[in-house]
Amino acid sequence: MKIKYELLKKDGKARLGLLHTNHGTVNTPMFMPVGTQATVKTLSPEELLDMNSGVILSNTYHLWLRPGEDIVNKAGGLHKFMNYPGPILTDSGGYQVFSLAKNKKKDIVEDGVHFKSHLDGKALFLTPELSIEIQNKLDSDIAMSFDECPPASASHEYIKNSVERTLRWAKRGKDVHANLNQSLFGIVQGGAYEDLRKYSAIETVKLDFDGYGIGGVANDGESKADMYAALDYSLPYIPEDKPRYLMGVGEPVDIIEGIRRGIDMFDCVLPTRIARHGNAFTRNGKINLKNAKYKEDFTPIEYGCDCYACKNYTKAYIRHLITAQETFGARLLSIHNIRFLIKMTEEIRKAIEEDRFEDYSAKFLEKYTGKNNE
Amino acid sequence: MKIKYELLKKDGKARLGLLHTNHGTVNTPMFMPVGTQATVKTLSPEELLDMNSGVILSNTYHLWLRPGEDIVNKAGGLHKFMNYPGPILTDSGGYQVFSLAKNKKKDIVEDGVHFKSHLDGKALFLTPELSIEIQNKLDSDIAMSFDECPPASASHEYIKNSVERTLRWAKRGKDVHANLNQSLFGIVQGGAYEDLRKYSAIETVKLDFDGYGIGGVANDGESKADMYAALDYSLPYIPEDKPRYLMGVGEPVDIIEGIRRGIDMFDCVLPTRIARHGNAFTRNGKINLKNAKYKEDFTPIEYGCDCYACKNYTKAYIRHLITAQETFGARLLSIHNIRFLIKMTEEIRKAIEEDRFEDYSAKFLEKYTGKNNE
Repeated sequence: MKIKYELLKKDGKARLGLLHTNHGTVNTPMFMPVGTQATVKTLSPEELLDMNSGVILSNTYHLWLRPGEDIVNKAGGLHKFMNYPGPILTDSGGYQVFSLAKNKKKDIVEDGVHFKSHLDGKALFLTPELSIEIQNKLDSDIAMSFDECPPASASHEYIKNSVERTLRWAKRGKDVHANLNQSLFGIVQGGAYEDLRKYSAIETVKLDFDGYGIGGVANDGESKADMYAALDYSLPYIPEDKPRYLMGVGEPVDIIEGIRRGIDMFDCVLPTRIARHGNAFTRNGKINLKNAKYKEDFTPIEYGCDCYACKNYTKAYIRHLITAQETFGARLLSIHNIRFLIKMTEEIRKAIEEDRFEDYSAKFLEKYTGKNNE
Repeated sequence: MKIKYELLKKDGKARLGLLHTNHGTVNTPMFMPVGTQATVKTLSPEELLDMNSGVILSNTYHLWLRPGEDIVNKAGGLHKFMNYPGPILTDSGGYQVFSLAKNKKKDIVEDGVHFKSHLDGKALFLTPELSIEIQNKLDSDIAMSFDECPPASASHEYIKNSVERTLRWAKRGKDVHANLNQSLFGIVQGGAYEDLRKYSAIETVKLDFDGYGIGGVANDGESKADMYAALDYSLPYIPEDKPRYLMGVGEPVDIIEGIRRGIDMFDCVLPTRIARHGNAFTRNGKINLKNAKYKEDFTPIEYGCDCYACKNYTKAYIRHLITAQETFGARLLSIHNIRFLIKMTEEIRKAIEEDRFEDYSAKFLEKYTGKNNE
């Protein structure tokens, strides 16, 4: 069975919805934790469920290289392999090919992309068909089309050609997509150009996917203004009965700006990546626990937070773990940071339900971006 | 209140007992997981309790350097700092000074040991008094006396002088020990020399400690025969109403040989250290999950094991995590390996209760050291 999106209510453009999947129904807008290599770094599936996780993400490119899609398939698919009972989305590998290829060198041809493995430099060739075939075998609930992710600085001409190629690739991927229990999303590209974003949205929707990703907004060099503009340019052309997913975005401010424009799904490695460097989200902005002022701070990361880390540990202890390079520190901060984003979406859903999304957002942003923050 | 050891029953020299502490009563013989830096690497306290952990260990030397004993003290002691509700034992730092000192250089004088920090090369001076004062502040349930750990290859003359100094240090430490809720153990040294082990045991017991460690058996170059001999030479001189702790030993075979000779407590970093390299204990000996033969092995590490890893994950998945350097792999193997040793002690306690320790040991060893093992 394919996924089904159910729009429950709107507050401005912000959407409250349900996503029905073969692995349960989840609420939107939602933040999806990233488990690149079939594991959300340092965490167990039970810890994710405790945080009220919905869909989680995993990466086609990484699983293709290790352990290989055939092993995951023989294990009974990604859910069984990694023991996550909720829905899983796999990206196409497109972004990784462009961001992780050894020396960032790649050769884009009509058929696909030639590049070298970031692990051992081995020559690889990924095509739209192969990406979909791998995802079919991984058996995620949602697969993504293989797209080109050009740099933010690319010219109008370059991006125009790239959008056309991404459309041809989307069609080729759709044509070979064979897993009836897996849904397939198309991806809207177009850089910071209004006409190209509009064109990409309209043409991608014509191919009729189960949902739509907005890509190319989280590359290096992409500004926040460009990101918000890309949404304004493309979302009006995406049907209301399909979920919209802003790819690679997880900054609290951007989650709010995305939801304000009608986004339903977000993913980002941010909460786990910053955790490994000692950073924690708080209502008053990010703090870094390596800061000496937390040495003797025997209070939780944030009062009122319901996460396992805040209920049981102090800033001083977590600071010690991070300083001593103990992975339990990254684990505690990952729990806190992911829960922070999920809790935020829970509050936003309630605000949409009660027609006070703008009020909620204004108050959240004022505190989060406040002058007196660390 | 000090700890109290209660001998319930003997089967040969193997002892079944209870250790009453301010943080609960635990069963002996027991294996104590090591939380060097106030955390058992990758694991939460809840995971340890799920494995039926009793006493856990932490390290005076490491906590002295980071975060500093005063911070732990201000946090309310080690239990509160790291959120472990069960009993905690701290070692004295003696072993670490001898094994971790930068370039292994140290200058032993009557007053203590001059050496350089393994973190930043800073000159440090640890004395018997300082070690005890730090442990008093950490507020562990059991503190260890500061001892010298000479290499296994040292001469009779060297070890004799070392034993005498360790006795003087033990007395000095005991004289400044001021935490009435903390028990203090003496440590028997003497290398592989029968007369010195006997002498060290008799003289250490004269100082009247709450329990006794057998040290200097887990150094580099120490043979298993030397280790077992050290126990045979010293244990007859340690009173039956005090707990005996074989320091730094955690190989399943050595745990059995230790218990056979009358040891009650063991500790070792082995289960967590080998986990990080992909190794798992099984009834048929250690296996390494990096081995290619486990690539498509969708069975648990060991059938019949009741640990979280074996109940939920396959060898193929754990192999993938270890290969991809995902810490969740080390976490799953640490859980399995620690549970393996704790389960083993549970079975041994039952065997002692039922007067079949020798039978249990013979069967365990035959399987564990079997010819057809990996």
